[in-house]
Amino acid sequence: MKTVVQKFGGSSVADYECMNRVLEQVSQRLREGYKVVAVLSAMSGETDRLLSLARSFSDSPDPAETDVLLATGEQTSVALFTMMLLDQGIKARSLLGFQIPVHTDRSYGRARILDIDDENLRSQLEDNDVLVVAGFQGCDFQQSLTTLGRGGSDTSAVALAAALDASFCEISTDVDGIYTTDPGICSQARKLQRITYDEMLEMASMGAKVLQIRSVEFAKKYGVTLHVRSTFSDEPGTLLVQEEEAMESVMVSGIAYDKDQARITLGGVYDEPGIAARVFEPLASSGIVVDMIVQNPSREGRTDLTFTVSRSNLDRTLELIQGLKEKIGAREVLHDPGVAKISVIGVGMRSHSGVAAIAFKALQAEGINILIISTSEIKISCLVEGKYAELAVRVLHEAFGLDQTQTEPVRDT
Amino acid sequence: MKTVVQKFGGSSVADYECMNRVLEQVSQRLREGYKVVAVLSAMSGETDRLLSLARSFSDSPDPAETDVLLATGEQTSVALFTMMLLDQGIKARSLLGFQIPVHTDRSYGRARILDIDDENLRSQLEDNDVLVVAGFQGCDFQQSLTTLGRGGSDTSAVALAAALDASFCEISTDVDGIYTTDPGICSQARKLQRITYDEMLEMASMGAKVLQIRSVEFAKKYGVTLHVRSTFSDEPGTLLVQEEEAMESVMVSGIAYDKDQARITLGGVYDEPGIAARVFEPLASSGIVVDMIVQNPSREGRTDLTFTVSRSNLDRTLELIQGLKEKIGAREVLHDPGVAKISVIGVGMRSHSGVAAIAFKALQAEGINILIISTSEIKISCLVEGKYAELAVRVLHEAFGLDQTQTEPVRDT
Repeated sequence: MKTVVQKFGGSSVADYECMNRVLEQVSQRLREGYKVVAVLSAMSGETDRLLSLARSFSDSPDPAETDVLLATGEQTSVALFTMMLLDQGIKARSLLGFQIPVHTDRSYGRARILDIDDENLRSQLEDNDVLVVAGFQGCDFQQSLTTLGRGGSDTSAVALAAALDASFCEISTDVDGIYTTDPGICSQARKLQRITYDEMLEMASMGAKVLQIRSVEFAKKYGVTLHVRSTFSDEPGTLLVQEEEAMESVMVSGIAYDKDQARITLGGVYDEPGIAARVFEPLASSGIVVDMIVQNPSREGRTDLTFTVSRSNLDRTLELIQGLKEKIGAREVLHDPGVAKISVIGVGMRSHSGVAAIAFKALQAEGINILIISTSEIKISCLVEGKYAELAVRVLHEAFGLDQTQTEPVRDT
Repeated sequence: MKTVVQKFGGSSVADYECMNRVLEQVSQRLREGYKVVAVLSAMSGETDRLLSLARSFSDSPDPAETDVLLATGEQTSVALFTMMLLDQGIKARSLLGFQIPVHTDRSYGRARILDIDDENLRSQLEDNDVLVVAGFQGCDFQQSLTTLGRGGSDTSAVALAAALDASFCEISTDVDGIYTTDPGICSQARKLQRITYDEMLEMASMGAKVLQIRSVEFAKKYGVTLHVRSTFSDEPGTLLVQEEEAMESVMVSGIAYDKDQARITLGGVYDEPGIAARVFEPLASSGIVVDMIVQNPSREGRTDLTFTVSRSNLDRTLELIQGLKEKIGAREVLHDPGVAKISVIGVGMRSHSGVAAIAFKALQAEGINILIISTSEIKISCLVEGKYAELAVRVLHEAFGLDQTQTEPVRDT
């Protein structure tokens, strides 16, 4: 039984016309001889409508009951789409999270999938040509409904593909693939034919909103071939693959950026063992994620500690730091709410040296000062003043020749 | 554990303000020491909205998928109401049909309850003070969602009350009880303090829309004391009880009417054994319910056969009769689309003679001609010309002194 999982996001199922397009894409795979598991999100805007409905009934809606409410969004879209399939004489049925079941933990609103009953799915696939699955939702082992958090339908789709050992998993969305960078700020941005899971993870964590990060981790873990494409076009999109499947090890695959960064500098703190822990532990226990950190060389037993947090956490961070000031001996607390992190991403960095040098030189040539640098095996991130964000992206995009990489035919998935 | 089931219809949960009123009614029962099972309908208008949504996606929406869609209505209201309870510090959770589970047959859109897991309910009631149950919905034994048909939440509530052996079941709705007749056409109509299940069944089948008929059958079968009252008032409503619990055997409890009747007369059909079957079997197999039937004495081997069907079935009935005309020897087929059935209902008829005589005399005094009469143990129905419907109701209401019955304090339920 050849099976493909096709996921359609909210904008793909927004109304009857959109769903007709989805119907066409599903039918195409049926004609190719696949059985199809179609994973649907709520119709676009529906989840926000439900959240605002909840807030009009409660100042702080209970998370468990919020999930009961949110689950109606996908329930609505799968019922409607299945009706359309049945009208076409296609053997189909809808499946809600609890009916599969997709078992999750009890973290309402951001539950993690623990287990999927693939036997039930397989038996349902024997009887039907299309299973229309409500994405984003599951249930715990007591049958309480749960949801997987924003973008959770991506993870539903990948998890189902893994459970069914599907040929591949198509994520149909309102963009037509993964780009070398945001086309909105760099007109030279080019659609990638392939990207590795690791690169995508770096891109996603940098704010590329195309895929939920967890779905990529899942795909990597279970080796699910992901195809990100547009619902509204027959053009091939971008394939997410294992590193060994990437055609050639291009040095750099893309430039990501994150403008939602704030920088904090603690001036003249005691330079003694454990000082970092004393600063960062209270932040961590308040759920504040510290991203880049740099500590200057010590002078006279004192040092400067600079780090970044997301801008929405700035106020809370400053508050916490204020309480620590004396304990850590900070002479001053400086902050800058308007900084941006620009990242150069590519698995090719593992084998190519000199990537950092190219990046620094390109930025310098435009007079862009680098405030902090952090690197990983496949990423170099530079913090720059916010006003330079777009320029930095374009400069780096050009420096690594991302607009010029040759196109190659994507193999037929 | 003293338990009460409280059912709130669509107009009772229409918005935040209405739900606040529901919250007050639930809290009142909690203060009285009850655990509460609150059965909610979809917010008013929601089921119609969902049905029209389905029709905008499919010309003939699949019944199973329609139930998946409709089930979101109650899911929404129970989630929102449970949030409100939790905000008040009341221990509560929502329960959807499949979570209890309420097992039904597979008759989508009009499923019948087969089984309720009361053990799970009882254990949930140990942990919570209020269970907020989605009415109208259940699931079959394969966990496919089903709905119970219009008014199905009444049946959900009664079935839960029976399963839990609840002290009583309150049906809170937008009317404040059961009336001796429709106050809309008879200003003398009076709210009944008590009515027996059988009388209510006769009233309901005659178009009194207050309760789903099946819920009354269920209540009768399991001896569930039903209290029909208004969500928007603290006044006692009407108690539905076993006949032996009715205070005194009043002769007549109410006057019901049904203006949705059409009369058909087959003139001069052969008067021979099996003639009725030859007429009515084809109607039955087309799903047409024949209500009143009268056959005149035979003359020269021929007779007239008169019967009524609901007006919406008139055209189809005439069509079927046309095909039978020759076979049954009918010389003519007459029909009257504008007739009305007026019924006098009361368990007291069992012990009081002369009820029919009072009715006929009262109608005759106003010059209202009776076209057909049919009687049951606790009901006398007269078919009259449609234009006399309202007058006949008022005349009979007065003839049986229904405006004058003494009020007696309803026992505190």
